[in-house]
Amino acid sequence: MKLGVLLFEGFELLDVFGPLEMLGQIDELSIEMIAAEIGAVNSTQGPAVLAQETLLSKACYEIILVPGGIGTRKEVENTEIIKWISEKASKARYITSVCTGSALLAKAGVLDGKKATTNKLAFSWACSQGPKTQWVAKARWVQDSNVFTSAGVSAGIDMSLALIKEIWGELKARSIADWAEYQWNSNPNDDVFAAKHGL
Amino acid sequence: MKLGVLLFEGFELLDVFGPLEMLGQIDELSIEMIAAEIGAVNSTQGPAVLAQETLLSKACYEIILVPGGIGTRKEVENTEIIKWISEKASKARYITSVCTGSALLAKAGVLDGKKATTNKLAFSWACSQGPKTQWVAKARWVQDSNVFTSAGVSAGIDMSLALIKEIWGELKARSIADWAEYQWNSNPNDDVFAAKHGL
Repeated sequence: MKLGVLLFEGFELLDVFGPLEMLGQIDELSIEMIAAEIGAVNSTQGPAVLAQETLLSKACYEIILVPGGIGTRKEVENTEIIKWISEKASKARYITSVCTGSALLAKAGVLDGKKATTNKLAFSWACSQGPKTQWVAKARWVQDSNVFTSAGVSAGIDMSLALIKEIWGELKARSIADWAEYQWNSNPNDDVFAAKHGL
Repeated sequence: MKLGVLLFEGFELLDVFGPLEMLGQIDELSIEMIAAEIGAVNSTQGPAVLAQETLLSKACYEIILVPGGIGTRKEVENTEIIKWISEKASKARYITSVCTGSALLAKAGVLDGKKATTNKLAFSWACSQGPKTQWVAKARWVQDSNVFTSAGVSAGIDMSLALIKEIWGELKARSIADWAEYQWNSNPNDDVFAAKHGL
């Protein structure tokens, strides 16, 4: 079972590695890091991660993960990235995003007619990328059928545990959270940050 | 101001990138990834990160971060890694570890006579690396003078925010946590996992 993680210059570190810490505990899941070119991809914070596959790979992914970060502002205009999302999402069992990654999903049409959420501090910008999406401001994450979109940065950890619950059951999700000494907020509507950020 | 992050094969993803997400918001801090060799270093979960500097670099770091992960079991016997920690720690303003990273700090003598904590599920092993350390089982993190050791995996995020509070003040730490939509557990003694894991 393959998890494909989209990388681009200026991705947000925790958007990627919060979910990968949790999903990385699932033995049957192999993680593939994908970018425009094989090699180093710089995060917003500086540290670089290696991409093993390019956007041209014919691989199918049961799960795709699209992170946010400052790079999304540029990548919404990148037709190759948007095409990759559209194609891979149409074949994936589950589609996930963290933070402004949902703006990329929206641009690719994946969120048309669906409920979704995004980063609180980039809310209006993300909404502008998906006029046919029902954007939810007060949410830790939103699940609409097979699409899981999370709020900003750390919310991706809660979302990834919800995805583990969906696929492998609640006991597995709880045991991974306990192992990682993580207090899982397992209620998608329990979000204190919408009010904090005036949404 | 430089933050030096020690990498080795089998480091734990969130141990590194939880703290780097938070510390990466501090403009004056530059992050350097260090390993035995420049190039790709594989995490426990698979994804590889680029090291920019080797253990032989003469650089001084105001802060050092030592992650945990399955690789620590081997690295406690790696005299080059232990020497690096001992040397860099003696010149650093702050020394931090996440999870079983504290076993490496202990082996390097950094925790002698100090209070410290570590991963709950590797507690007795970590303790065995530091017989002169006062190990604390029930803690989210432990600060003893300039040494911050955190409990397992996700606890490193709370610890890194405590370090930000120590250096740049509580308002800065809270604003970063809020920005990242992270519910900071700011009380180092508020730990539910010691009991959960029978400690």
